Formats: sequence, structure tokens, C-alpha cells
Amino acid sequence: MTDIRMDWAREKRTGLAEAVFCAGKTARQIDAILAEADGRRLLLTRLGPEKCDALDPAHRNALDYDPLSGTAFLGTPAPLTARGAAVVCAGTSDLPVAREATRTLAFYGWQAPLIADVGVTGLWRLMERLDEIRAQDVVIAVAGMEGALFSVLAGLVESVVIAVPSSIGYGVAANGQAALSSALSSCAPGVLTVNIDNGFGAAGAAIKILKLRSR
Amino acid sequence: MTDIRMDWAREKRTGLAEAVFCAGKTARQIDAILAEADGRRLLLTRLGPEKCDALDPAHRNALDYDPLSGTAFLGTPAPLTARGAAVVCAGTSDLPVAREATRTLAFYGWQAPLIADVGVTGLWRLMERLDEIRAQDVVIAVAGMEGALFSVLAGLVESVVIAVPSSIGYGVAANGQAALSSALSSCAPGVLTVNIDNGFGAAGAAIKILKLRSR
Amino acid sequence: MTDIRMDWAREKRTGLAEAVFCAGKTARQIDAILAEADGRRLLLTRLGPEKCDALDPAHRNALDYDPLSGTAFLGTPAPLTARGAAVVCAGTSDLPVAREATRTLAFYGWQAPLIADVGVTGLWRLMERLDEIRAQDVVIAVAGMEGALFSVLAGLVESVVIAVPSSIGYGVAANGQAALSSALSSCAPGVLTVNIDNGFGAAGAAIKILKLRSR
Amino acid sequence: MTDIRMDWAREKRTGLAEAVFCAGKTARQIDAILAEADGRRLLLTRLGPEKCDALDPAHRNALDYDPLSGTAFLGTPAPLTARGAAVVCAGTSDLPVAREATRTLAFYGWQAPLIADVGVTGLWRLMERLDEIRAQDVVIAVAGMEGALFSVLAGLVESVVIAVPSSIGYGVAANGQAALSSALSSCAPGVLTVNIDNGFGAAGAAIKILKLRSR
Amino acid sequence: MTDIRMDWAREKRTGLAEAVFCAGKTARQIDAILAEADGRRLLLTRLGPEKCDALDPAHRNALDYDPLSGTAFLGTPAPLTARGAAVVCAGTSDLPVAREATRTLAFYGWQAPLIADVGVTGLWRLMERLDEIRAQDVVIAVAGMEGALFSVLAGLVESVVIAVPSSIGYGVAANGQAALSSALSSCAPGVLTVNIDNGFGAAGAAIKILKLRSR
Amino acid sequence: MTDIRMDWAREKRTGLAEAVFCAGKTARQIDAILAEADGRRLLLTRLGPEKCDALDPAHRNALDYDPLSGTAFLGTPAPLTARGAAVVCAGTSDLPVAREATRTLAFYGWQAPLIADVGVTGLWRLMERLDEIRAQDVVIAVAGMEGALFSVLAGLVESVVIAVPSSIGYGVAANGQAALSSALSSCAPGVLTVNIDNGFGAAGAAIKILKLRSR
Amino acid sequence: MTDIRMDWAREKRTGLAEAVFCAGKTARQIDAILAEADGRRLLLTRLGPEKCDALDPAHRNALDYDPLSGTAFLGTPAPLTARGAAVVCAGTSDLPVAREATRTLAFYGWQAPLIADVGVTGLWRLMERLDEIRAQDVVIAVAGMEGALFSVLAGLVESVVIAVPSSIGYGVAANGQAALSSALSSCAPGVLTVNIDNGFGAAGAAIKILKLRSR
Amino acid sequence: MTDIRMDWAREKRTGLAEAVFCAGKTARQIDAILAEADGRRLLLTRLGPEKCDALDPAHRNALDYDPLSGTAFLGTPAPLTARGAAVVCAGTSDLPVAREATRTLAFYGWQAPLIADVGVTGLWRLMERLDEIRAQDVVIAVAGMEGALFSVLAGLVESVVIAVPSSIGYGVAANGQAALSSALSSCAPGVLTVNIDNGFGAAGAAIKILKLRSR
Repeated sequence: MTDIRMDWAREKRTGLAEAVFCAGKTARQIDAILAEADGRRLLLTRLGPEKCDALDPAHRNALDYDPLSGTAFLGTPAPLTARGAAVVCAGTSDLPVAREATRTLAFYGWQAPLIADVGVTGLWRLMERLDEIRAQDVVIAVAGMEGALFSVLAGLVESVVIAVPSSIGYGVAANGQAALSSALSSCAPGVLTVNIDNGFGAAGAAIKILKLRSR
Repeated sequence: MTDIRMDWAREKRTGLAEAVFCAGKTARQIDAILAEADGRRLLLTRLGPEKCDALDPAHRNALDYDPLSGTAFLGTPAPLTARGAAVVCAGTSDLPVAREATRTLAFYGWQAPLIADVGVTGLWRLMERLDEIRAQDVVIAVAGMEGALFSVLAGLVESVVIAVPSSIGYGVAANGQAALSSALSSCAPGVLTVNIDNGFGAAGAAIKILKLRSR
Repeated sequence: MTDIRMDWAREKRTGLAEAVFCAGKTARQIDAILAEADGRRLLLTRLGPEKCDALDPAHRNALDYDPLSGTAFLGTPAPLTARGAAVVCAGTSDLPVAREATRTLAFYGWQAPLIADVGVTGLWRLMERLDEIRAQDVVIAVAGMEGALFSVLAGLVESVVIAVPSSIGYGVAANGQAALSSALSSCAPGVLTVNIDNGFGAAGAAIKILKLRSR
Repeated sequence: MTDIRMDWAREKRTGLAEAVFCAGKTARQIDAILAEADGRRLLLTRLGPEKCDALDPAHRNALDYDPLSGTAFLGTPAPLTARGAAVVCAGTSDLPVAREATRTLAFYGWQAPLIADVGVTGLWRLMERLDEIRAQDVVIAVAGMEGALFSVLAGLVESVVIAVPSSIGYGVAANGQAALSSALSSCAPGVLTVNIDNGFGAAGAAIKILKLRSR
Repeated sequence: MTDIRMDWAREKRTGLAEAVFCAGKTARQIDAILAEADGRRLLLTRLGPEKCDALDPAHRNALDYDPLSGTAFLGTPAPLTARGAAVVCAGTSDLPVAREATRTLAFYGWQAPLIADVGVTGLWRLMERLDEIRAQDVVIAVAGMEGALFSVLAGLVESVVIAVPSSIGYGVAANGQAALSSALSSCAPGVLTVNIDNGFGAAGAAIKILKLRSR
Repeated sequence: MTDIRMDWAREKRTGLAEAVFCAGKTARQIDAILAEADGRRLLLTRLGPEKCDALDPAHRNALDYDPLSGTAFLGTPAPLTARGAAVVCAGTSDLPVAREATRTLAFYGWQAPLIADVGVTGLWRLMERLDEIRAQDVVIAVAGMEGALFSVLAGLVESVVIAVPSSIGYGVAANGQAALSSALSSCAPGVLTVNIDNGFGAAGAAIKILKLRSR
Repeated sequence: MTDIRMDWAREKRTGLAEAVFCAGKTARQIDAILAEADGRRLLLTRLGPEKCDALDPAHRNALDYDPLSGTAFLGTPAPLTARGAAVVCAGTSDLPVAREATRTLAFYGWQAPLIADVGVTGLWRLMERLDEIRAQDVVIAVAGMEGALFSVLAGLVESVVIAVPSSIGYGVAANGQAALSSALSSCAPGVLTVNIDNGFGAAGAAIKILKLRSR
Repeated sequence: MTDIRMDWAREKRTGLAEAVFCAGKTARQIDAILAEADGRRLLLTRLGPEKCDALDPAHRNALDYDPLSGTAFLGTPAPLTARGAAVVCAGTSDLPVAREATRTLAFYGWQAPLIADVGVTGLWRLMERLDEIRAQDVVIAVAGMEGALFSVLAGLVESVVIAVPSSIGYGVAANGQAALSSALSSCAPGVLTVNIDNGFGAAGAAIKILKLRSR
């Protein structure tokens, strides 16, 4: 009865397929979408473990589900043949967002290393991995708290830097606002930003960028 | 006496030379930087007409100055040989920011068309130019007020979309906050954002992206 | 004992009866109001399923309750004889708010189609339904995230557009603030706005407007 | 050289012609628009006296300019034949916004009384004019400070109420934020809101509504 | 072990005894305070039902507890001999805050009527009680949402008006911010304000004021 | 032509006459109000020196004008016979607001000492004047920056304390927001607050309170 | 599998060892860090009781855990031989934050008295302990609500004052914002501030300062 | 006539003399303070060039005035004999604030190097000066925009770090808010913060800290 219409042609039009943002949907609404998929591959994001378990078992079992990032794949995974992006994060607490990015990349066939715990307070950790990072065309950087990683990284590498502020922090950093304003007002030129916790959007933009290489 | 040290090696390290942000500097401080340039090319941003006129005449005359965008070039312009980006803006009031982007692109040798007055209220104006826009690899979109242009555009093109919220508007849109939040929370996947009025940063990011094509 | 006085004469005075906003009331306070209704028809809003179940069974059974929108009708429904409004929403997650609007319209005898999933990222979905929307005198548009739907719609139709920002989104869009500022600062002339998630208020205003046709 | 494209077909499409918002435009850009008008009628808003005086004298003299509201008409005025709206404001300081509304209505041929100084602190002043206000189909209410007028008015009349928060006030009321939040969170059902100081938008919406009577 | 020191001399110094704000304290900490009371009378505020039940039964049974307002009295109640204040509230949802005020007044021996449901949307309800309200020296007004009650009331009565914004509302009114800014920016002279939901503080101030009559 | 209607009966109704808030009015509008006064006494607030000089000389000369506070009296001053209030301020920069309060009190016949420079950083200065302050029934406290004066004072005196946050400060204290939140969230019971810089409102409330003594 | 790299050399480099901020980590991630500690001493902060109980029992039993502050020590405690700091707090509700500070100090070998309940409303309580406080080189002050303690204290002592705003309060004081802005805008010179509830950071800074004495 | 009372004993009580904050004072008020100094040394801050020129010439000539920082010394300078602090700033635009700090230090006899242009985008510039910075006991760091300098610096040095966010930036960084939240939410332990642009306060705190070494 619910009137759901997926934008199945979006991939052709914009280069990125529509994904299912599950946060505001009931398990029944997600079931309806999955039923409509009809053999098409689908990426689901923000799917919490409880809601995932509340899905129709037939649907649940068909999903490749990752609880840390809350992402799920419907359908056969794409082979991981493409390269050029890495996901870098400041601390352990940023991993859910960082993995939303790597999972989204993987869904579309991109293999991207996840380099964790390179927050700028221990600069040597970043420096140790710098060559690996510099080899990438696009670097997705995830950081909460004060988000200093974005500026330091963008001052060190030639790669395109996409900043994902994460909602890690308390007091003035609560909900990612401090990290977001750091990303947007970075002194380093060429830092690009997406919404707080938006690992999916960062991955989507990275794919659009990487595809240009062969266009 | 003022202790100014330009980061002359930044271009080599990050692919983008350091520019001189003039808004918080006195004419004397800018003169000191220009004196230190010593034959190197320099891009100046946020240089208002009064401050420009207050420079040492020898410096003033050496500049290629554009009052609308407040940008100035020191040194021989690069030949406009590179292509792949366009700057799109919603209304006439967005032109200063849009031109900061095209001037920055031009300083580095990129010729980018400026497509103005394609705000979404008159959707036909955007549709009319859509083929031209779709032909670009990167589209820098400048919009103030409610910033609906970002989402509509990103839903229509395969190009990478960089949103520049402009500080055009009043009431809740004052200072570009409404357009910024629209850019960041866009439903369209893959929209990338820079700070309010940051045409320079958008252009810098666009260049980093476009260079990947030949890397 | 609780001193509750309904404003029973409000419908005569303002054209809209007082409704019972249940969010801040206990089940006992709502029971007291229902007991006082004494044969009058009543609309209840923001009545969650748990609170509804906690009502006196005699009251609970007398209600026509819709859990998705949290609305309930006491008394015989009005015949659905009036027409002229539609409710349009950007995505599945906006349905609770959209249905609060259609249910409010229905309570007063207005049949209004609910047109879902017409977010601007897939513009074709909106275009496909455009004739149907244009035929309405008043269009209630519900959207969260960046709320670009409001401006695009108002640029396409002659109908009166009432924007209802919904609290769908995260990061800068959390709690509907981004969509609200988009609605208020829309470039399209004549967009009218109500509070975040206020489907009831939008429906009330629509009825006031539609009644003018026969005044 | 500036690429300005007016949306001349907007009136046909949406019922309201595009107006020229002068706040972010230079006198030269406004001159270019006026030159392009070519016999068409045009409404200009937010045109300050200094900028008006800086226009090409030929353009300046062709304008019917009202300095209090900053509005100007190009072309022969429409005859004031339509009726049904009034503009009500709380205090003398709200007059610039209130007149932006009446001037916009007048440009399109609607004669609307302006009822000033009916702030709720002296409720008798509102009551004295209540019959006159109740006779209108649409009431545009302009108020700054705490904006209590919106709720009181909407509780007393059957007319459609459009609230225009004005940027009158200091401290927590600075820039109209207190009045805006009062309008949006009004307990009175059916209050519709536009952006702070947006007398133009309120008038545009009023016209759309009033036209429904004869549709 | 916890180092708690009550300011037992505060009543002598400021005219108001220290009360125990329970929201940030554990049941054990409250027990320690009650144990220290040693025959003195004590007022407890913001004591939720669960925390109240978690107190040492000996303490729990000694309290006169009111769950709606979350207030509790330790010790023999003062005789209700003093008069001069009333508490007025806009709607049923404001009752918890309004009762925090009446209970605080009662603890100190003041009998104050609670006049509910006089929100300004149904102005007649306020008018009906106006004589009763005008007879008071101090009126504590509790309102959430847009808080228009404060201005209307203060424009009608000679009594001192103390506004208590309540955290009733959603969207822009969430958490009482809209009502607070209405109270502070009221056009009516002489409105005094306390923090959101601070019925206790309003009652304390009222007592200080009323005592002046006999000073 | 301007439609100005003063609420001349307000004093009778609420105990406080309407004053003329000049900040949002032109000199011509103020002239119109003064012309209408017709022998009545009037208090003008927020009248800057330039606007005062721009008044009709006949009006200007009839005013008792105080440039520091921006207040003016029209008509014979009331004899300063009433007592019971003092105005206390933290620093020299708070004097304009403090004097708006003393001038308002004087207009209505109340003589109130102004005790300056008693900020809490030098607590001895406050202690030195404490007996004088304690002798007052109402104390109006004006402070900007962090506003700690409000709490300290209210913890020391039995008098009613009315806090007036002033817009003195920079950074997070800009525009008085820090002082306002300090006033509202004071731990000291019974602190009452008015809008930022609202010396007039504080004086009005003080008068209402002081009149109760003889009611 | 989770890639966790502690910055074990931080103590040598900055004088403070890295601590484990547990709020954003799962019990499994904390277990992994504890497993890696390998005989090193570790301080854990923001470890709630439930999460602590969910740790591997071998790890749980090895911890010296304090539930009030949510801190835990791994490894043999340092002898409490160093002196020079005190922690002062305004009320009982500030104890969790105050103890995070004393526990952090203790972990590094500093014995610091915790002086509670010295809020400025009862100034005598602060005065009573003033000599003890003045004997300290560094005073960590914890306060929520309006945070007046910071300014009063800094005006009375020669010690270095570190303000820790606590998230105690409601309405405008919710989440510690009012106390934070009071700390930052204090009139008393030399007040230093850390993030809301950041007892750990304040202790760390105190240690850095105290070490200077013997440097 | 103006009632100004300096807190001349503050230096004895707190270790720091009262300074004259000139931003909110008229030239006449400053003259009155200077006249009262009577041979005592005085530090004036936030004294703009115009206001300085408007002082009584006898006072103006007695001042050692620095226009860049807006600071002035009255009386014989203290000999620059003390050492242990440095002021570090990210860019040229931060110099006014950085010099307010060095001038304040100099007024009290501390010679502190000013190390400019060490923003983290060009990390080598910071590294080049790192030994010099590490040799200091206290480092005052001034940065606007995203304020990443605070965290990077504090991760590299053992010195006490006092962060001064500067009001350099635009968009989300306007007025120093982004830099302030970065300072407060820094991942690096032991970063202490003062108000935006508060070079004076940072210097005062540094002096308090440095004095501990010889206590």
C-alpha cells in the first residue's frame, strides 16, 4: 500500500545508483523496497542491528550485513577490481563512519585500504603511513573532536582530500559540529567536505572523481 | 620587520601554490609579501578596491586586478590551455564568488565557462544549458538563499559537483547559512562542499581533481 | 480535578476546531478531555501507540486511530466531499508527517491525494506527477534533509504551496533545521511555511484557503 | 557583458512575475536588467536610496520609487481593482516591511489597507479594528520583537493569516529571530509564515490565494 | 563520605531557604542530605518518581511527594496563610511547571490559585478570569510554544508578571527557546523572566516581592 | 500621513505609561509622535545623538536629553520623592544601560542611587557598598561579560534582584549572550531577568514591584 | 582485526601519556587495547558501569574502577607523593567531573584535595576554605549552571585557575553552555578553560604546569 | 562625575594588576582613569587609534602606544628580565592578537619571542622552529580559521599550551567560533583556552604559571 518508487535510473543519469537510507524507515517499508528490487543489486545504509533482525527472514538472509557500519548489500558483490582511494581515520571511534565509506566503495567494486588511528596528536603515526596515503588519488579522511586531521593531511598530500566530520566528541564537539567547522574553514586549499557522519556520500563522490581518470 | 614566511614549496607538495588571503592583512603587509615574491607568480584573493589602491604604486601597477571578485594576479598569466570545469551560479548576486572561482582557475591555466542565472525557480534556464554542463568533468555550483541548485544539479549530471554556498540572502538565509546546510544535507549523492563564499577553495579542489585525469 | 477547558467555540470563530495535541499530556489528561467531548467530534494529534493503548478502553475503542501519523478521530467521520488540495512528499521517511496532513484534511471532509517519493534528486518522478499536482489549488509539500523540493515545486506550479519541513536528516539537517531554512529562504515567490513536522497546521491553513473559494 | 537572464515566463507558469531583488546587485547590474525590460513592467525590491540615485538617470526617472519600503515600479501601474487583503502591523518600526507588502500588492493591482500600531500590548487597538480585519480574506501580519500579534490575531479571525516577522528588536529579538520562532510555533492553527522582513513574499502568496476565489 | 554542605543560613541572608535540586544527584546523595536535615524543613525539586522510590524507605515515607511537579516536602507543612500571587498557564502540558510554582509557594505558606488553559488563541478564556488575575499582586505566567501569553497578560494587568517559559513544543519551539525569547523581548513593559521550566525560581522571586508589602 | 496611535491609556491599565522606542523610527516619525503628545509627558528611549539633533528644533529644545543613556523626557519632570531601588553595575562600560534604568526611574519620580564598578573580580568593592545595597527593596544589577555579579549579589541580599545583561564583551560574550545565560541560569533563587540592555524594562518592573508596598 | 595503535611515546614527547577515551568504543575494542597494554599502566576515562561489566572478566578484574567518575586504572597505582593542586566544585552534581580530575591526578601520582559545595550563592562556604585553596599552585574549578564560581575564585586567589564547565543545568544552561561562556568571558584575568565536563584535560594541564616548578 | 573605582589592590591579591579595557569606554572615561593613576603604572588594551588620538594630549603623550595591538603603557616600562614564554601564531592576520600577548608580557617584564607564520598547512615551518618552541615553559598559540595549530602543537611539545582563537576567518569560521571549538575539543591533552582574541588573558595566565617556578 505504501507508495515507494525507487529512482532505478539514477545510476545511468548521475553515475551513482540510489541507495536505501534506512534510518527513517520501518522494517516493513524496507521489506517493501527489497521485494521490489527484483534481482537488482542494492546498497542499504544506516541499518541498525535491531531493525535488520526485524526484516522478513527471507530478506534478512539475502543480505551481506556489516553491523559496525550498519550497511548491507543485496545481490552478488561486485569484484574488487578498482583502486585509487583510501579511507583514513583519526581514532577507533571513527571506525563506523570510516567503514560506511569502505563498504560503499566495495559495493561498487573499489578496494580501498582503511588506515586508522592517525590522529594528529601523535603525528608520527600519520607520517609513518604518509607514503601509502600519498599513493592514492583520493583520500577520505574521517575525524571527530576538533578535526585537525583534515588540514594537516591536506597540507601534506597531492591527493584530493574529502573530509567526513564524525559525531565523536562531547561539549562543544558534540554531534560533530566542531569537526565540521574545522573541515569547512581549513587553511589548506582544496579540502572538500560532506555532512557529519556521511561516509556514504564521501565514497560516492570519490567514485565520481576516480571515474574521471578513464573518461 | 613583520615576520612573513610564504610556503613557497606548497605547490610542489600539494599541487596548489599558496595564495595570499588579503582580508585580514594591511596594505603594508601585502606590500611586504609582494616584495618578497621576487619574480614568482602570485594569486591574491579578497583584495578590496580600497586596499588595492593603498598598495605601493609599483606593486599596484604590476597586478592584473579584477574588482568584482577581488582577485589579483602578479606575474605573467598562464596560457588558458586546460579544460574540464565550469562554474554555474544561481543569480546575478552570486557573480563575485563565481568569478573568484573562474579567476583562480584561470591563474592556473584552466579556461572555465561561467554559466549564470540558472536558479531552480526557473528550471528551464538550467535545462537549456544542461548539455553544456554535462560535458564538464567538474561543475562548481554557486548559490545563496536556500541553495536548492546543488541538489537539482547533482541529480541531473554525472560530473563531480562542488557546492559553494554564497552569503546572499536575508533573515534565516543571512550569511549563507541556509545554503551551506542545504549543500551539506543534499539528498543527491556525491555533492562536495566548501566554506561559504569560498570560490578559491572550490577552484583549487577542482584543479586537484582534474589533474587526476592525466596522472 | 485537572482543570481542562477546551475552546469549543474556536471553529465558529476561526474556521478551525481546536484539536488535542497529545504529546505533552498524560493518558489520564487525554481521557478527561475525551470524557468532556460529550458527543462532539474531536481530532487528536501526536498520539503515540503506547499512550493510545494506555487510554481508558472505552475511549480507545471509540477512536479511529492511525499509528503511522499518530492521529485519532473521535466521532463519526465527515463525508469526503471536498477537493482541491494534495499532499506531496520527498521520501518514504516523510510519510508520518504527510499523513498527519491528509488525516487532518479527511477529518474536516477533504479528500486529498498523497503523492510520495517525488524528491528532486530524481526530477523525473516529480515531472511525471506534475499535471496531477498542477490541478490542485493548494499543495502541501513535506520534505526533510535539504528541502529543495519546496523551491522546485513552487517554480513549476500556480497552486499555493505550503512547505512542511520534516525532521528527517542527520548532521546539519538534524531535526529539520536545514529544511526549515530552505523553505523560508526559497527563491520561489509565494512559498508559505509552517513549523517542522507540522502537518496538522499545514492542513488547517489549506482548509482556510480552500474555503475562500466559496466565500 | 554580465550574463543576466530574467525568467520572463514565470508569471505565466506560477502566477507571479519575477521581481528584481536589488540588495546583492550593483547599480550597473540593475541598469542592465532595466535596459533589457523593453517595455515590460517590473517590480524592484530592496532598492536603497543611494543605489537608486546611482542608477542611469534615464532609468531612475522612469521608476515610481518609494524610499520607505525600498520598492520601485517600472512601467504603467496596474489599476487598483482587486480587493480582499489587508496588511496589519504591530508598530511604527514595522512600516518598511508592511509597505513592501502593500506596494507589491499594488503593483499587481490589489488595493490593501495598511492597519498600523495594533500591537497586542494595547489589545484595544486591535479590537477597535477587528471588524475591518475580519472582512478580509487574507491578512498579512507584520511584527518584530516577540511577535505575539500573530497568535492573537489568528485566534480572532477566520481570514488566512500570513505572518511576516520583522527584524525589529534588540538582544534576543535582534534580527527578527524571536518573532520568527513565535510565528512558526504559534498555538493558533493555520498561521503561515514567510522569511524575516519578507513583505514581498507574503504579498505574492496572498495574491496566489486570492486568485483561487475566481479560479 | 560525600562532602555535602547545605547553606542552612541562606534563608536568613536572602529570605529564601536553599532547596535540593535532585536532577543531578543520585538517590544516595539525596538520602545523605535528608539525613543531615535533622528536623529542619526541606523542599526538594526535580525529583522523578523512580528516584523518589529509590530513596531509603524511612526518608521516602517522611516526604509529602507530588509526582506531577516532582516536588517533595520534608517536615510539617507551613500553614497556608499568605496570599497575593496566582499561577496562570497556557495549556494542560504546562501543568508540571505551574505546579512546581504553586508547590514552592505552598511550602513557604502561600496559597496561590492555579488558573490553567488560558492560552491566547482562545482569548475569551483569559478574559473570563481577568478580574481574578487582576486582584493578584504577582502573577506567575507559564507558557511554552510561542509564549504569546506573557505579552498579552502584561498588557492587561497592573500586577507584576513573572514569565516562566516551559519546554513544551516541537520544531523551533523545542525545549522552550521560542517561549523564552518571547518573554525576554516582550513589547509589554515590566515582564520579568526566569529560566525555562523554572517554576521554583519564579515562586521564590514572587515571595521576595510579596514580602516587601509588609517590610 | 503615517498612522501612529499611542496607547495613552496604558498607564492606567498596567501602571506604566507607553514609552517611545526610537531605535527603529525615523526623526520624522518621532516628530509626529511628539506633536501628538499635546501636553502629555513622554519618555523616549534609544534616541541616539544624531537622531536627536535631526528632530524639529522646537521638539529638540523641549526635551531633557541625556546622551549617555539615549533617553529624553518631554514635559515637566516628576518630583523625585519615591525611594526603594538602586542600580548597581559591574563596570564603567555598563553605565549607558544603568543610566537608562535610573533615568526611567527618575521620569516616574523615583530617586535611585547608581552604584558603579562593583564587579565580582574585586569582591571588596561590592562588599564595601553592601549595606547600602541591602537597604534597598529592589536592586537592578547591570553586567556584561560573564555576568557573575547577578549570582553573587542575589546570594548576599534579601532585596529583589533584577538582572540586566549588557552587551559588553567580545568573543563568546559578544552582544550580551553570556551574561544573559548567566542571569537565567543563576544558582541563586529569585533572580529575575529582562532582555539584554533593557534598562528601561528593568526600571518599569521595579516600579510595579515598589508600588505594591502601598497597595 | 581492528587496527588500534596507541601512541605509547606520547608521555615522553608531551609529558602526558595517552589515555583511553571509552565513550565511543565498544567493550571489544577496549578489550583489544587492554590486551595490547602488555604491562604498561593505562588510564581509562568515560567508562560507564555497563560497559565496564561487559569487558573480558580478566580485564575487568585487573582494573581499579571508580563508577562515579567512570575512570579506571590498569596497573599498579603510582605513589601519591606530589602536591600543589586542588579541585574545587560548586555543587554535589559536579562531583563526577571533579572526581575525573582527582582520579587523573592520582593516576600520575598527585594527591589533590576535593573541596565540594562552594558555589557562590553561599559565599561564606568558599570563604571558609579560602586559605586552603590559596595554598595551592593550581586550582581546578568545576561548575555548571551559570559558572559564577570561576570569576569569583580567580578574583580571590593567586593560584592558576583552570575552569571546567560541567553539563549541569537545564534551559539555557543545558549541556554546560552557560558555564562555558562564563568561563571564557570571565572578567578575572588569567582564567584558563577546558571543554565541558573535561576533568581529565584539566588535570593533564595542571600536571604540565606543576612540573614546571622543578624543571 | 563618572564614578570609576580601579581595583588597585588586585595585583597583590591575584598576582595580576587590573588593566583598562578601553573598547566600551569613551575617551573621557579613559582620561578620568589615567588622571586617577597618580604615578602608578597602567596597561591599556583594545585602544583603537582614533580613540587614542581623542585622549587629552597630556595623557596621549605619556603613553607608549602600539597601534597594531591597540595596547598602551602608562609609566616607565619594566625591565625585560624574565623569560620562559613564547607566542606562536598561524598567520600574518593573527599578529594583532599575538602582539597583545607579547605587549602584555612585556608590560610585566617578560621578554617573549613572537614566532609567526607557522600554520599547519605548511608543517615544515612549524618543525623548523620546534626546538625553539620546545625550550619554552609556556607557549601561547594564536590561530583563527580552523585552529588546527593548537592540537598539532600540543602533540609535539611538553610546554604548557594556551590556545587563543582569533577572529580571523569567514563563513563558518567568522568571529573565531571554529577556532574556539577546535581549541576546546582538541584531542591533545592539556590544551588550555581563553576567549576569542584574548591575547591579554593568555599572557596573564602565562605569567601566573611562570611565577610558580620560583614560588
